[in-house]
This record gives sequence, structure tokens and C-alpha cells, in this order.
Amino acid sequence: MDREHMDHAANLMRARRVGVDTYQEPVVYMRQDCAVCRSEGFAAQARLQLTVGDRIVVATLNIVHGDWLARGEAGLSESAWAALRPAEGATLTVSHALLLDSLSHVRAKVYGHRLDAAAFAAVITDVAAGRYSDLHLAAFITACAGDRLDLEETVALTRAMVAAGERLDWGRATVVDKHCVGGLPGNRTTLLVVPIVAACGLTMPKTSSRAVTSPAGTADTMEVLAPVNLDIATMRRAVERTGACIVWGGSVRLSPADDILIRVARPLDLDSEGQLVASVLSKKVAAGSTHVLIDLPVGQTAKVRSVEAADQLGRRLQDVGRAIGLQVALRITDGQQPVGRGIGPALEARDVLAVLRRQADAPDDLRQRALRLAADILEMGGAARAGEGLRLAGEVLADGRAWATFRAICEAQGGLREVPIAAHRQAVVAGRAGRVASIDNRVLARAAKLAGAPQSPAAGIDVHARVGDLVQRGQPLFTLHAQAPGELDYALQYVSSRPPIFDLTEAP
Amino acid sequence: MDREHMDHAANLMRARRVGVDTYQEPVVYMRQDCAVCRSEGFAAQARLQLTVGDRIVVATLNIVHGDWLARGEAGLSESAWAALRPAEGATLTVSHALLLDSLSHVRAKVYGHRLDAAAFAAVITDVAAGRYSDLHLAAFITACAGDRLDLEETVALTRAMVAAGERLDWGRATVVDKHCVGGLPGNRTTLLVVPIVAACGLTMPKTSSRAVTSPAGTADTMEVLAPVNLDIATMRRAVERTGACIVWGGSVRLSPADDILIRVARPLDLDSEGQLVASVLSKKVAAGSTHVLIDLPVGQTAKVRSVEAADQLGRRLQDVGRAIGLQVALRITDGQQPVGRGIGPALEARDVLAVLRRQADAPDDLRQRALRLAADILEMGGAARAGEGLRLAGEVLADGRAWATFRAICEAQGGLREVPIAAHRQAVVAGRAGRVASIDNRVLARAAKLAGAPQSPAAGIDVHARVGDLVQRGQPLFTLHAQAPGELDYALQYVSSRPPIFDLTEAP
Repeated sequence: MDREHMDHAANLMRARRVGVDTYQEPVVYMRQDCAVCRSEGFAAQARLQLTVGDRIVVATLNIVHGDWLARGEAGLSESAWAALRPAEGATLTVSHALLLDSLSHVRAKVYGHRLDAAAFAAVITDVAAGRYSDLHLAAFITACAGDRLDLEETVALTRAMVAAGERLDWGRATVVDKHCVGGLPGNRTTLLVVPIVAACGLTMPKTSSRAVTSPAGTADTMEVLAPVNLDIATMRRAVERTGACIVWGGSVRLSPADDILIRVARPLDLDSEGQLVASVLSKKVAAGSTHVLIDLPVGQTAKVRSVEAADQLGRRLQDVGRAIGLQVALRITDGQQPVGRGIGPALEARDVLAVLRRQADAPDDLRQRALRLAADILEMGGAARAGEGLRLAGEVLADGRAWATFRAICEAQGGLREVPIAAHRQAVVAGRAGRVASIDNRVLARAAKLAGAPQSPAAGIDVHARVGDLVQRGQPLFTLHAQAPGELDYALQYVSSRPPIFDLTEAP
Repeated sequence: MDREHMDHAANLMRARRVGVDTYQEPVVYMRQDCAVCRSEGFAAQARLQLTVGDRIVVATLNIVHGDWLARGEAGLSESAWAALRPAEGATLTVSHALLLDSLSHVRAKVYGHRLDAAAFAAVITDVAAGRYSDLHLAAFITACAGDRLDLEETVALTRAMVAAGERLDWGRATVVDKHCVGGLPGNRTTLLVVPIVAACGLTMPKTSSRAVTSPAGTADTMEVLAPVNLDIATMRRAVERTGACIVWGGSVRLSPADDILIRVARPLDLDSEGQLVASVLSKKVAAGSTHVLIDLPVGQTAKVRSVEAADQLGRRLQDVGRAIGLQVALRITDGQQPVGRGIGPALEARDVLAVLRRQADAPDDLRQRALRLAADILEMGGAARAGEGLRLAGEVLADGRAWATFRAICEAQGGLREVPIAAHRQAVVAGRAGRVASIDNRVLARAAKLAGAPQSPAAGIDVHARVGDLVQRGQPLFTLHAQAPGELDYALQYVSSRPPIFDLTEAP
């Protein structure tokens, strides 16, 4: 039996890194005329299982008709390559992926049936193992979107997400945490709350997410100032040394299924109460937290648009928290306009540093919000008596202890970094004089994303006027920042094709 | 200004066919260090608009880190190449795809809101133009699945699908059609009904679909016997010459949005009443039909599982038909077991030929079903008086007129073909003696698909026993046919890992 026939009988192929970034869905490229492909009858979009040693990945097949791939070669996309880590030319085994029984649960959910705990566990186990294609993930996300998960289902989804990843144990009775239910551009209080709370002696091992549908997530902004892709050992050292950390949750594999779902949820831009609650709380439980403060900004164009909606979401968060042994406190905050001045990772990081350094031009709204949230956590975690949290938080910020703690955290995570500045900027001015009646957060956030945030950290928007301000005709309302001229043009085009983002009433 | 800067300013790149079959989603490959990519800030999974002359396609970006693509080259997947049809090395323009306002309607539907006619028109226009990514399509399909579309929405979706493609006009008062709501393996009556009805003088320009979740669609089976990828001119000539045709609907761009939705619905394997009705009826209206008979097979493991469900679906089909000016008749048929003997394109085509040629071993159940349906259409279309359709249908089949008409149709479509035979076969035998109490159509269909149907036309299953038959231990129940040994193994493995497909009761 010749070599090709032997390989074909065992479905062996040579791994080749083809360097294609498919945005995380693992893809394998095979020639249509290769022996394995023909004998197995693989067709485009088939789901194949690739094995190298004890590492396995399920990838979607793309069939290659050209000759840039040799016979017997299996081309791997960047994500498939990262999952398998073969040597170039190493032998890999190719077989049909197993039928996914858990997809019957996804279908049941699509048809409007309730899923039980076993069903969510089966789905999430397969999701975390990378067995779902992007289409399957999109269907599951869509089926659970809006308010389609009830309390029990949300509890089951949360538990399944925790079980699918690592779970940290800090060996302490109280481990505090916070989370902001997004939608408010520039609301980067976490980078202030963590050092304030840690400076008062509480343990706050913060894992944050990257942007889902916003121009920056906390992890994106923190990454401007220090590395956030830490392994658990480095994270643990940082917490032991400083009482805290601010890292990207995805890199420590806490609730990894959540990260996979978020990746596909991002281009779909769907809200889902059940997935939001499960996403937030699974990360907290997995991170070993015992007490969590949830910041719920409410505003016409924020993610949560009314106090009633905030109450409903808050109740769901507390109910699920109770079921899984997590104490959840709520703080409903003003979400009518951006917080601070910057929108986008670098511009937000600049605002945070100004507050920590007690600069005269530091945005006061950002400082006040951070102090209020820190106060709640200090009281909830037992570091301050009821009613005394705000005073204590103000003290450690004013006397530089928070800034010192923040620097220590950055050092422990790999070193404080310089904040980058965008190469291209363009101010957008008021078309007429007037008073700012409202600001459309959603359009502003969209414009910041079109300008390149968060992929380009320096990109985003600097906001120059706030609700209630009187502005003159021609006065800059905000400045677009971009790294590429094409992105600047695209954001400008979007802004000018819309009704004004700043609603100006007649000046008196 | 040098050449690269000129090109970059105008976002011009050289088209290169990279020969990757991404299963129809257009993909464009660009080097991360190319000037256009950098200046525009394109990131993986971005949606880009590619223009060559007056041809435009929206493609998903994959970023290439290797050097198999030269700077200034844009690699095109097979579907992107087919849409743009550039010369190799031709210049194409790359820009950000426009924001899709119609996605707000998709999100509204996901959240459980009703959509109006304008919303469906906007969504379907964008779908037909190829502006939706596969993830967007998956979300829309999922949001409309099950019974989530009401009557008005289904009418609106149907109209939008018709409006998005060609619409044929045969210049005749009566144009008949039929459709079977699938799920019943081997139910290939169309290939018999069309020649019978055409032989009686009615006009039946049949456009059929390929398999969605089944081992063979009518177009797949017909393709074994004659070309079905016809343009409208060839289809028209066939109908003028013979009164009928049996072609693939997708190739004549009738309801093209439906074909795009079906492509993504296939791997999701979701049922959707609204989409099913819109899919079926939009094709009929676009094909210029005035009278349609719908065959609804009912059985425990068929697509429609109860007479009540068939009644409900039938009412919806008739209600929507009424709203769009199409007369819809229903025939509920027995769906408890496969029809004929073959499952898969070639095996089903063999059964059809046996009936048309009046062979002694022709499957009688297939013949009886086809005569019943043909009779309904003959009466509905005015070619037979009420109660006389069955006699007339029987006559034209028995005297060879139907067979002559079928051959004429095949000739008009490009010539009658030989039926291929699979390279690999394996019989599955009864584990014990007994009487066949039931047959699991779904598992049988799945096994036929795993054996390679419909991608390998000769693949599938030959069924040897029917419900009620007495079988001996070791007697073959069915034979798996496959073109590749890997597929045969995989289908066998699936069959042996399940409870028996044939439920045998104790023999008396």
C-alpha cells in the first residue's frame, strides 16, 4: 500500500498554517481532489473534527479548487491553528464531527419550549468545546434573545456557564465585585472603583469583558494602561500583592462559553435579558466573588431606558444571584449622557488617569459616579459602616492612595503603559446656537465604532458639551479620533447623514 | 503620487480568484498589511462592498497573514468571483458595506414584535441583494421559525419574496402546479404527475427546489435524468414544446431570497410554518401559476405529524393563497413510511422510470399516489370533470402517453440521462423475525444523507420492507448506497448506534 493510500485509510493529512483570520470560527481548507476529502465525501461547510495528539478542534470545511494547497495538506485558519498548535507539516487526523445531540435543545428553544438544566448543560458544554458552528451559535443566541428565558432557565444557563470553565477560589470570606450593565459611553468607573476599594483593604479580583456592541469594554480600556490577557497564576499574584486586578475574563477561561456566545452576538447586536444576566453572574461566580454591585445606568438612549426596566432587570439579577449563592446589590444611575469626555479605549483611559492623578481638568461626573459605587461596595463588603462609605472613598482618592494602588495593580499586571493618541482628528461643530437638550448615546457610540474603536484603541470620540450647556454656532460639540483616514471619513459620513446627535433647543 | 498611493486613495485592488468554496457566502481575502486594508481600518469579519464595473457584491472579510496573497490583491471566494465575474487581475473597488437599516426589523422580530409589509420588503430586498451575512440570515430564520409569523406577516413575506425576483407570465388563463410539504423519503410523485397532466393538455411549468433537510429534493432527482439548471428562455421553450418542464427554481431566479434563506436554514434544520408557506407560494406565484395542489403527507415521523397539524398548515396555505390571488387545493396523504423503494436522487429516479415504463416491478404505492394527485390537478385545472380525473390519469399512464411526454420534457431540457449506480453498498438485515410495525422516516432520511445524498446523486438507501410485512431474521431491511467508503462507514455507524429504524413486533 503506497503512502497516499495509507494516509487516506487513516485520514491523515499534513497541517499547514494558511494564515487566514476568520474571526475565530475554526476553518479547515482542503483540496476537493485530495484523497481524504473524496473518500470521506466531505462537502463545503461540513463540520470536521481535527486531531493532533490529544488536542481536538471542530472546524468548518472550505473546499479549495486552486492549487495553493498541495494534495494531502489541510490548511488551518488562525483559530484552528491556535487550538491545535501543531508543528508546520505535522500529521493531523480528519474525521466527520459527531452529530450534536444538543442541537435538538436549541431547536426546541427556537420553537418556544422551555429548556431544563440538563438541556442548558448539554448546549453550553458543546459550545465551550467549540463544537457549534457560527450558524448554530447565532440560532441559539437568537432563540434566547429578548425576554425568552424565564428565571429558572436563566439560573440553569448561568450554572451551565460556570460549570463549563475554571472557577477561582480566593480563600477569603468576602470577595467583592462590580458590574455595569453597559450602553453608556465612557462609563469607565471600574478603573477607579477597583483601586479605591482595594486601597481600603477589600479583595476585588476584577475580570472584565471586551466590548460587545459598544466602542470599548472595561478590558479594552484597561489594556491601554496595562496588559489584561493574564493567565490565572499572574492574576493571582497581582491580587495577592495589591488586593485587586483588572483583567480580561476571556484569557482566564472563566465562563468560556460566554466569550464564544459574545463573539457571535456582537455582529448580531441583539439584547437578551437572560443571556445578559447569565453572562454577568457566571463571570462573577467563576471569579470567586461573594458580593456584587450592579450599576444600572438609565436613560432614553442607554441600554436600560426606564427605571421600570432597570427594576425588572435588577430583580432578575438578584433572583438569579440568590439561586446561585451570590449577594447582588443594585445602584440605578443617570444614563442620559456619556460619562467623562472620552469614548473609546485610549480616550477613556486618559479620563481615568486624570481623576486618579487629581488633575484640575479631570471629569467630575466620572469621579462622582466612581465614588458613589465604591462607597456602596465598601459598605456592602464591611470596610465601611453604613453611610460612611462615601467619605472613606473620597479620602483614599484625595490622598493619592487610590492612584498608588492603581499603579501597583498595573505593575503587577506587567507595567503601566503610555496612552496612544490618534493620527487623524476632526471636530464636529454646532450648526446653530442653543442649549443641549439631549445627546443620542447610541448614535454617538456607533460613530465611535465606525471611527475604529475598540479595534484601534486610540480611535473614538472626545465629547466637548454636556446636557444643559449653552453652545454657540460653530462651537465644537465633539471630535472624532481615528487611526485611518478611511475610518474618519466613514464616521463623518455617518454622523452627517443622521439627525444631529446633540439636540439643541433655542437659546433664551 | 506613486501607483500604490493612487490605488489606495481610490481603494482599488487587483481581483484574484483563490478558488475557495465557502458554501456561497461571498468572502474576500485581504492582506493585513495592504494599503487599502490599513487606510480603511478593515477588520476580520467586516462586511465590504466590492465593485467591478456595474457588478456589486457584499463580502465578509478574512484577513490573510501569510504571503500567498500579494500586496494590492483582493482574493475572492468562488461565490464572490461568480457574482463579480472579473477578469483575473481586473481592478475592483473596495469600500465599507452600507449599514443595513433593515437589520433593525430583524431585531424587532427577534424581540417578538410583528413586522409590517414595508419591513419584510426591506429585509427581503437586502437578503436578495446578498447584503446579509450568514449570521444575519441565521438570526432572521430563527426569529421567524416555528409559528412566529402570523397570517398577515406570512402574506407580507410571500409578497416580498415574489417582488425580489423574476415573475413569469405564460399568457394562459390556467397554469397548474403542485407542491409536496416534504419529510417523506422517496415521495417523488412530481416526476409522474407533471407528464400525466401535461399529456392531458394542461400547462405545468414546474420549478422545484433542491433538498433542504432531506436526502433529495425534486430538482436533485430530476437532475439525475435531465439538466435542471435552465435559464428562463430554455424553460420557456420546453413548456411551449411539451406543455411542461421540471427545473430547479433557483436557476431561474424565482424568489431568489428564498434560495438564500434555504441555504442557511439547511444546517440549522429548523421548521418554520411562515417561511414554509412563503417559500412554497412565492415560488408558485413567481412561476406564474394560478392553481396549486398541495400534498400534505401525515405520519408520526413525517414533517407533518398529525391531521390537525396538516389542517392548520393547509388553512394557512389557502389563506395566504387567497390573499395573493392563487387558488390552493389540499390533499392529505399517508406519511407513515417512505414512498417507493429508493431514497436519494438516483434511487428515486430509478423508481420513477419504472412507473413511467410500466415495469412489473414498479412500486405501486408511488404510482397510486401520483395518479391521485394528478387526478386532483386534472379536475382543478378543468381537464377532467369532477370524479373523472383518476380514470383519465390512469389512461395516459397506461397507454404510454405520460412516458412519451416525460421523454419529450427531458429532451427539451437537454436530454435524458443514464441513472448512476453507487460504488459501495451494504445491506442492513433484521436482527430477528417479526412484522414491521413502523419505520422511522427521520432516522432513515438522516442515514441516507450521511451516506452522501443528495451531494452524491447515487448515494442513499434502497428500502426492502414495508409496514405490515413479515420478515425473517437475517433478511435485508434496507441497503445503504454510497460513493465513498468513508460515507458508507459513517452511515452504518449512525444506523447501528440507534434503536432499530424498523420496529418489528413478535411474529404470530
